[in-house]
Amino acid sequence: MSSENTEDSNARWVAYRPEIQILDCTIRDGGLINDHHFDDDFARTVYRTGVAAGVDYVEFGYKASKRIFSPDTYGKWKFCNEDDIRRIIEDEPGGPKITVMADAERTDYKEDFLPREQSVVDCYRIACYIHQIPTALDMVKDAHDKGYEAMLQLMAVSTVNMPDLEQALALAAESQAAGVYLVDSFGSLYSEQVRNFTKLYVKAMEGTDKVVGFHGHNNQQLAFANTVEAIVAGANRLDGTLNGIGRGAGNCPLELLIGFLHNPKFRLRPVLQTVQDVFLPLKQELDWGYSIPYAITGKLNQHPRAAIAMRASEAPDDYVSFYDAMTQEES
Amino acid sequence: MSSENTEDSNARWVAYRPEIQILDCTIRDGGLINDHHFDDDFARTVYRTGVAAGVDYVEFGYKASKRIFSPDTYGKWKFCNEDDIRRIIEDEPGGPKITVMADAERTDYKEDFLPREQSVVDCYRIACYIHQIPTALDMVKDAHDKGYEAMLQLMAVSTVNMPDLEQALALAAESQAAGVYLVDSFGSLYSEQVRNFTKLYVKAMEGTDKVVGFHGHNNQQLAFANTVEAIVAGANRLDGTLNGIGRGAGNCPLELLIGFLHNPKFRLRPVLQTVQDVFLPLKQELDWGYSIPYAITGKLNQHPRAAIAMRASEAPDDYVSFYDAMTQEES
Repeated sequence: MSSENTEDSNARWVAYRPEIQILDCTIRDGGLINDHHFDDDFARTVYRTGVAAGVDYVEFGYKASKRIFSPDTYGKWKFCNEDDIRRIIEDEPGGPKITVMADAERTDYKEDFLPREQSVVDCYRIACYIHQIPTALDMVKDAHDKGYEAMLQLMAVSTVNMPDLEQALALAAESQAAGVYLVDSFGSLYSEQVRNFTKLYVKAMEGTDKVVGFHGHNNQQLAFANTVEAIVAGANRLDGTLNGIGRGAGNCPLELLIGFLHNPKFRLRPVLQTVQDVFLPLKQELDWGYSIPYAITGKLNQHPRAAIAMRASEAPDDYVSFYDAMTQEES
Repeated sequence: MSSENTEDSNARWVAYRPEIQILDCTIRDGGLINDHHFDDDFARTVYRTGVAAGVDYVEFGYKASKRIFSPDTYGKWKFCNEDDIRRIIEDEPGGPKITVMADAERTDYKEDFLPREQSVVDCYRIACYIHQIPTALDMVKDAHDKGYEAMLQLMAVSTVNMPDLEQALALAAESQAAGVYLVDSFGSLYSEQVRNFTKLYVKAMEGTDKVVGFHGHNNQQLAFANTVEAIVAGANRLDGTLNGIGRGAGNCPLELLIGFLHNPKFRLRPVLQTVQDVFLPLKQELDWGYSIPYAITGKLNQHPRAAIAMRASEAPDDYVSFYDAMTQEES
């Protein structure tokens, strides 16, 4: 049906867009379920699956401040010490790039971002809310000046006023960031909204060489669909996780994303193998994926924390009471 | 972001399109999992949920030929006897319209479609493959002439050549059908394909008063997303099922569809109540929803029957062997 698609030159189903890169954030976003306590075997399997599947980036976790978060409580991937990552990747030649996320106001970046030559990390993803943009831009500069690729990720965009967002994107376009990520933090965005946001981000980066990325959540079973929308609208760096693992409803399943892309560098079979061997048993231990409470917070454009608490409560399936509580009058 | 949306006047998020109607096919498509053996309590609960939720149509099952299918093997909703439906609906005034599906070559329609005044059925949905279009059109005429609304549903459209499809749509436009359904039988269609197909169907019906509908499958977690795409492209009759129940990966979850639509006649709370009370326990008995084998058949544009057989086999989770078998060389 190519004649229908002339409005958008990206939509060439049989070909592929070589610029498209995949970031596997399984260990990082999956770690939000278990406070980043994945063991080395798990991390090594995920990393090696990334190598075999041909993904471009593998993300291990956060570079969180040890002043704020105790290593007695959180697992190693909350802090991503160099030695921990190095032990997993074993300097695989030609393997995926290594990314670590760093939250604004929760990272001692001046000390903890080492000079690049002392680090196995390739890219820091700087996550912030709209009021933290100045801090985040300082983190971007710090990472960039030390030799890293730095990506800027504005969270909770579905709650940001358009003029504020346009200002933030203009600042990002002038920054040292290698690109910006559209993040559907609450899993609340519908396809047209993703398309319009992505176009806005792409337009704001025009005239720079900055990439636009997309990270979705599956509250309304839209993480994969919205990732495809973002691709069609011009996003070239896409997040996915094995079997869609991630906090709450989870993320875009890597197996669907690779199934959709036609670039022969990506391979589906190793992803299926790891889902079968590791994630199927893991589902007996950890709770992720679509369920009604996450659909409700997504529809209501709310942080999933209420749904996460409800799923961990003694009434994890009292959907109607949860819906009533989430929609009661606010004072 | 309305300024971005001027290309498509349908995309008005805050308003709603009053023409949009919902068909709940829970009992019919869910019945494909258990050979239509749902008991009266279940059917009554689904029907009453449809009443409370404000859906426009409730579908009970098939009008299958008793010469081909034995009532000893199949449950009552395979045949939809008048008395069985009548016992459930109890002539609820102002309730949803009643639909029944009828497959081409598997229905004794001349005998079994009663004159409308003897029936509680409002609408027959005539399902066919491309080579059965003449039979299906005769069924449409028969149903129409007896006083029913008749919808034409061409299955497996993802495998039909475009010239054949255009011919079929032209015949449908000249027929007595009240409308045509775009059906993503294999759950293989991506959003742009749904958009383009829907536009093609809408264009083919131009100048008639026929409606275009959409029925999705969730093999690639796209049933809801594709339903939204179809809505944006002009489809006005949408299928959904409670908690997405349906054969294989299931259908568009009614709770997500109602959450998306803004028409105040639709109500989410009764849907959540029934999902909580009935479908959560039912999930312990029946297998539906996203899993890798269905994702594989969807990606490969294949009927899910191989995945259904594999899920019922002794190795329901050997994804890699299944993938290898489905992608081996064909002679």
